[in-house]
Amino acid sequence: MKVNHHEAIEQQPVEMEGAEGCVVRWLVGEKDGAPNFAMRQFEVAPGGHTPKHRHDYEHEVFVLEGNGLVVDGDADRPLKAGDVIFVQPDDVHQFRNTGDKPMKFLCIVPNSATGKQVTVAPECGTE
Amino acid sequence: MKVNHHEAIEQQPVEMEGAEGCVVRWLVGEKDGAPNFAMRQFEVAPGGHTPKHRHDYEHEVFVLEGNGLVVDGDADRPLKAGDVIFVQPDDVHQFRNTGDKPMKFLCIVPNSATGKQVTVAPECGTE
Repeated sequence: MKVNHHEAIEQQPVEMEGAEGCVVRWLVGEKDGAPNFAMRQFEVAPGGHTPKHRHDYEHEVFVLEGNGLVVDGDADRPLKAGDVIFVQPDDVHQFRNTGDKPMKFLCIVPNSATGKQVTVAPECGTE
Repeated sequence: MKVNHHEAIEQQPVEMEGAEGCVVRWLVGEKDGAPNFAMRQFEVAPGGHTPKHRHDYEHEVFVLEGNGLVVDGDADRPLKAGDVIFVQPDDVHQFRNTGDKPMKFLCIVPNSATGKQVTVAPECGTE
């Protein structure tokens, strides 16, 4: 068994194309011997966002703090602490912080996501 | 994509042998089409606990609120909000609320856990 406070785990910048103001902690993953899935904690600065993209694996997300939205294809859906989001395989998605404090969420992915192709989706107004 | 506040999802009593004062919400799981793993939210009343047991699948846990401990084999390890616990396959474990408010946590399990054998472990002092 491993027990840690999440803030004791190293935070790294998210360097994917289309990310802005995002950092991530890999709380539990393959390096810990996790056999099936990884738990990551993201923190998005006010005005920041994750990439708008899609991929053939799922996300299960829980919003811990802050306010923002999730882009669901062409729609924006508001988010607040305590919301749960199931991003199904191939859903176009993006998390955006529209508040004035950091938006923090957990995002769980299958280990099989490692190395898989991600398709960047056009931002609204840039198509 | 599915977006819900977790409190909008039905809460059910945990009726496993050895559980006391526990309720659970299945936030995302196979019924939603989740292909690999399920996110559940547990709430344990003051003085309550999950079963002390082990099984051949893992848990990845994030403490949302409250104070308590996780029984790790023969040891008690304190827990507070923001703690992350990786319960490895076959670890004996139990979550106990030692505070005066509900203890709330997320617990993710692989879909392959469904129907698997769980072995109850003796409580301290009852062996």
